[in-house]
Amino acid sequence: MNEQNYIIEPIGIIRSGLTDIEKAPHQGDEGAPDAWLELRASVAEALVGISVGDELIVITWLHCAQRKVLQVHPRGKIEAPLTGVFATRSPDRPNPIGLHRVSVLEIAGHRLRVGPMEAIDGTPIVDIKAVLTRVDDR
Amino acid sequence: MNEQNYIIEPIGIIRSGLTDIEKAPHQGDEGAPDAWLELRASVAEALVGISVGDELIVITWLHCAQRKVLQVHPRGKIEAPLTGVFATRSPDRPNPIGLHRVSVLEIAGHRLRVGPMEAIDGTPIVDIKAVLTRVDDR
Repeated sequence: MNEQNYIIEPIGIIRSGLTDIEKAPHQGDEGAPDAWLELRASVAEALVGISVGDELIVITWLHCAQRKVLQVHPRGKIEAPLTGVFATRSPDRPNPIGLHRVSVLEIAGHRLRVGPMEAIDGTPIVDIKAVLTRVDDR
Repeated sequence: MNEQNYIIEPIGIIRSGLTDIEKAPHQGDEGAPDAWLELRASVAEALVGISVGDELIVITWLHCAQRKVLQVHPRGKIEAPLTGVFATRSPDRPNPIGLHRVSVLEIAGHRLRVGPMEAIDGTPIVDIKAVLTRVDDR
């Protein structure tokens, strides 16, 4: 098997009032607040075409996650059977990628206000993608 | 801004009859074939709980992508206006993460047959996640 590794150079950072990982919701739709995506000026051109009201997928690097964890009790419930992390949304996993579906609320230069966002302040941003439209709208 | 980079250690590789990137569909729902996810034996434990019929999100590293491209003509149509890659699903982007929603068709040890999968043979796999259920089912 190909043993090559790859390097993520974050494109920006999450700025949020959520600073305590213990208090962060498990998922965005469980009461997560708005947050600012503070993008690097060097990638500002890549935002052209994004408008307020758009739905985006924000991809983060969950920098506080444990990369050696392969099984968890889902949602931290000790009574739930141990489950492989690939069958869950646990942040702990070998490559701790976070996926967040958000709406764009405000655009200020290369900063976007979006919500809901359950990732804490300081979380690195890896990528931003359009939500796929139906195949017959493309 | 935090300037730290992060290292992705692939958890496996795509095995597919699709070998020519020029012939690969843009998206899975545009006629993409099934493929095998060949996971490393070292992460086999992380698959526990995945069953045939499950819906998963496979996250790949689009290793043939151009990382310096910030704007594209969407879907390669030269008549479409140049658009920032973060407003599109272009594979070319600073961190070329691929997102693929698939169904599990077959499980053989630490190999999963899934579909549809538009990524070509040899594409590194970064992560696998459960599709989120509705908030009131969690």
